[in-house]
Amino acid sequence: MNAADVTPSTNGRARQAWARSWTHLRIERRSTTWCRVTFDHPPINTITAATVEELAELVGLIEQDPDLNVVVFDSANPDFYLAHYDTEHDPGRTAALGVGPTGLHAWLDLLVRLSRAPVVSIASIRGRARGAGSEFVLACDLRFASREKTLLGQFEVGLGVVPGGGPMARLARLAGRGRALEILLVADDLDGPRAELYGYVNRAIADDRLDDEVEEIASRLSSFDHDAIARTKSYVDKVTLPDDREFPSPLADFFERLGRPAVQERSARLEALGLNTDSDLERSLGRRVVEAFSG
Amino acid sequence: MNAADVTPSTNGRARQAWARSWTHLRIERRSTTWCRVTFDHPPINTITAATVEELAELVGLIEQDPDLNVVVFDSANPDFYLAHYDTEHDPGRTAALGVGPTGLHAWLDLLVRLSRAPVVSIASIRGRARGAGSEFVLACDLRFASREKTLLGQFEVGLGVVPGGGPMARLARLAGRGRALEILLVADDLDGPRAELYGYVNRAIADDRLDDEVEEIASRLSSFDHDAIARTKSYVDKVTLPDDREFPSPLADFFERLGRPAVQERSARLEALGLNTDSDLERSLGRRVVEAFSG
Amino acid sequence: MNAADVTPSTNGRARQAWARSWTHLRIERRSTTWCRVTFDHPPINTITAATVEELAELVGLIEQDPDLNVVVFDSANPDFYLAHYDTEHDPGRTAALGVGPTGLHAWLDLLVRLSRAPVVSIASIRGRARGAGSEFVLACDLRFASREKTLLGQFEVGLGVVPGGGPMARLARLAGRGRALEILLVADDLDGPRAELYGYVNRAIADDRLDDEVEEIASRLSSFDHDAIARTKSYVDKVTLPDDREFPSPLADFFERLGRPAVQERSARLEALGLNTDSDLERSLGRRVVEAFSG
Repeated sequence: MNAADVTPSTNGRARQAWARSWTHLRIERRSTTWCRVTFDHPPINTITAATVEELAELVGLIEQDPDLNVVVFDSANPDFYLAHYDTEHDPGRTAALGVGPTGLHAWLDLLVRLSRAPVVSIASIRGRARGAGSEFVLACDLRFASREKTLLGQFEVGLGVVPGGGPMARLARLAGRGRALEILLVADDLDGPRAELYGYVNRAIADDRLDDEVEEIASRLSSFDHDAIARTKSYVDKVTLPDDREFPSPLADFFERLGRPAVQERSARLEALGLNTDSDLERSLGRRVVEAFSG
Repeated sequence: MNAADVTPSTNGRARQAWARSWTHLRIERRSTTWCRVTFDHPPINTITAATVEELAELVGLIEQDPDLNVVVFDSANPDFYLAHYDTEHDPGRTAALGVGPTGLHAWLDLLVRLSRAPVVSIASIRGRARGAGSEFVLACDLRFASREKTLLGQFEVGLGVVPGGGPMARLARLAGRGRALEILLVADDLDGPRAELYGYVNRAIADDRLDDEVEEIASRLSSFDHDAIARTKSYVDKVTLPDDREFPSPLADFFERLGRPAVQERSARLEALGLNTDSDLERSLGRRVVEAFSG
Repeated sequence: MNAADVTPSTNGRARQAWARSWTHLRIERRSTTWCRVTFDHPPINTITAATVEELAELVGLIEQDPDLNVVVFDSANPDFYLAHYDTEHDPGRTAALGVGPTGLHAWLDLLVRLSRAPVVSIASIRGRARGAGSEFVLACDLRFASREKTLLGQFEVGLGVVPGGGPMARLARLAGRGRALEILLVADDLDGPRAELYGYVNRAIADDRLDDEVEEIASRLSSFDHDAIARTKSYVDKVTLPDDREFPSPLADFFERLGRPAVQERSARLEALGLNTDSDLERSLGRRVVEAFSG
C-alpha cells in the first residue's frame, strides 16, 4: 500500500470534518489549497466558549491538511469583526475549556498553533476587533484592514484587567515598545490608518478595495508550492514568535482579576450600558470604556 | 496598627517630598494619580549634573508612590524640550554623580528606573531634544511630538563621541537596525513626521492639538486601576527593555572619548559658535554639527 | 619601525587593490573616507558567481581600509539595481564559490561581513532589486529608495524555493513578523512608498532628490571620526544582527529545492518568458512570477 492508496480515504475523512456544521463560523473551501472562514455569530461576533471550541477544532483541521496553503478569516458583519470575549455570565464554561495539545489554555493553544501552522493565515478585517478579537487578529500571519471601517484595540486595562491572550508578547514585537504600551495601557481604539502606522496591521486598504486585494493575495498563495511556503514561514517563526512560556502568566492574571468584585462591578456597569449587544457602547467601546470607572 | 493607620503620615511625608523646591523642574500634582513635570532650565533646557540629581530624586518619588498612574513630561520652552547634556566645563561635577541603586551611573540609573516604574511616563515633546535630551525621551514609555515644532536627534557622532545614555539599545528596538543606524551615525535632526515614520515617537500630532491630546490620554490613564497598568506594563517590559548590561560600555566610551583633545577642540569650536546658548547653532545643531570638524 | 613608517606602503598596496579592473562594478574613490560603488552588469545587473567573487574581494578591501567611513552602492542602470541571482545554467560555478572567512558560503559570508564592517554601507536604490538583489540591499546599513522608480521583492517562494541569502532573518527584524511574512510568502514587488511604510528601506525619496540626498548623507559621514562611527555601529550590531547560525539552513534549502525537477521546469518557463533579460517579465516579475506555476 503506498501513499496514493491512502490519500483518498484520508481526504474523504478530512472533507467530512471540514464540512461539519459550524455554529459561529461559515467555512467555504475555495479549493484544495484555499479556505475562507467567515465569523458569523450575531449580533456582534462575540467570542464565547463555543467559539473557542470551534476555532480549536478548525485549527486542528488546518494543521493536518497537507494541501492547504492559505486561510482567510473575514466577518459576515461589516461593523464587527470579532467584538471581544463574552463569558456569558458563566465563568465555568470558560474554565471547562481546559488545555490544548501545547499544554496551554484552549484559547492560547489555538492561537499559538495557528501561528505555527504550515499555512498562511490572513485576517481580512472590517469592523471592530477588540480584546480577544484583537488577540485573534494578532495571531494570524497577515493582517489587512479596511481603511475606513476598522477599529482595533485592547480595552482590558480600561476595565481593570490584564489582557490575557498574548497581546503584550505579540504587539511589543510588531509595533515596538512605545506603541505597544500605548495600545495596551491607554486602551483606546485605533482606526485603520493608525493601525497601519503602528504596524498593528500590515496595511490599511480602501474599504471598496479590501476584498479584491485580499482575494488576489490569497489567490497567489493558493497557487504556490505548499512546502516552500511552510519552510519559509518556519524560518520567520524562529525569529519572531514569542516563547510559549510568555503566555500563561498574563492569562492567569486576567482570570484572577476578572473575579475581583471591583472588576465585576465595572463589567456590570458596562453591561447596563450595552456591552455584548449592538449598542453605541460597543460601537464606541474604546472611547466609552472609561465609563466603567465612573459609576 | 494597620495599613490605613500608617498611610496618612506616609502620604504626608510623600507630599512634602514632592513639594520641595525644584531648580530645573516644575512639578504640578494634578491629582493623586496624575503628575505633570515641566522642564524649566533657561535658556535652552540643557541637562546638567544638577538636572540629573533632581531627575534621580524625582524617579525615586515616582517609584514609591502607590497612587500615581501617569507622569507627563513637557517643557516651559516651546523651542527646546531638553537641549542636550552640558558639563559646564567641570567634568568633576558629572563624575561626582556616582552610581544609583541599580549600580549604573546616575544618568543611566534614572533612565532604566523610569522605564521600569509601575507608572506610565509620557514625553510630550515640543522643541528640540538631542543627545541626552533624546535619551530621556527614549526612556519614557510613550512619546508624542509636535508635528511642526519637534527636532530629535543624537548628534554625538558628529562631535566624535559615542552616544552614552543608551540610544543604541533603545532606538535599535524601536526603529529597527537601518533607521537606528541612520539616526545615530548620520547624527542629523529628525522632524516630527520623520520621527513618527521611524517609530522614534509614537505619533506626531499637530502642534495646536498636542497639549489637548496628551491631556486626554493622561486623563484616561489617571482614571484606570494602578495595578492593571503596572502588571500589563511589566509584561511588555520583559520583552522590550534592554538588559541593563548593555548600557555601561557605551557610556564608558563616551566619557573616554569626551576627554580626548580632538573632541575638546571640536566642543570648543561649537561653543564659540553658540553651543549651550539660544543660538542659531543650537536651533540648527543637526545640520551645523559638521562645523565641529571644519575648523 | 612605527606605524607611520608602514602606512604609506600599505596604503600604496591598498590603492592598487582598489584600482584593479572590475567586471561588474565601477568603483570611484571619492576621498580617503568615501567610496562609491556602481553596479554595472548589463543588461539588468544580475548577480552571478563572478559578481559574488568581486563583491567578496571588495568587502575584504572595505574591512581592511583604516580610513574609509562610508560606501555608497548605486546602479548604472536606472531600471535595475540588482535584478537577482543568475546561475548561468551552470550550478557548478556557484558551488565552486566555496566558503568565506566566516565559514559561511561566499554569498552569505560577504553579506555578514559587510554588515559588520566598521564602515557605513548605503544602498542608493533606483530600479528593481529582487531575490539576491534584495538580500544585498538588506545587508547594507542604510537603504534609500527612489520613491517612483523602486521595486523590491523576494520572489523565490513564487518559484517554489526558499530565499537563501538571509531575508527571513533580516526582514523579520526590520519589518516585523506580519510584514516580513507578506514580503516573503506573497512574493510580490513592493514599490518605494510601501517599502518605506514596511521599514524595508529607511526612506523613499523623490527620484529627482535621491542622488543629492544620498550625496549629502555620505558627505556628512565622510567628514566624521572613523572610530566614533565604528564603535557606535558595533553597539547597534550587537542588538540587531542575526546570529550567523541562522543563515546556513535556509541556503541549504534553497540549493536543495533549486535542483528539483519541478523548480527547474518553472525556471525554464520563466526563462522562455524573458527571465535574465530586459523583458516585460523582468520588469514585472513580482506580478508575473505566478506564471511559473501556470504552465
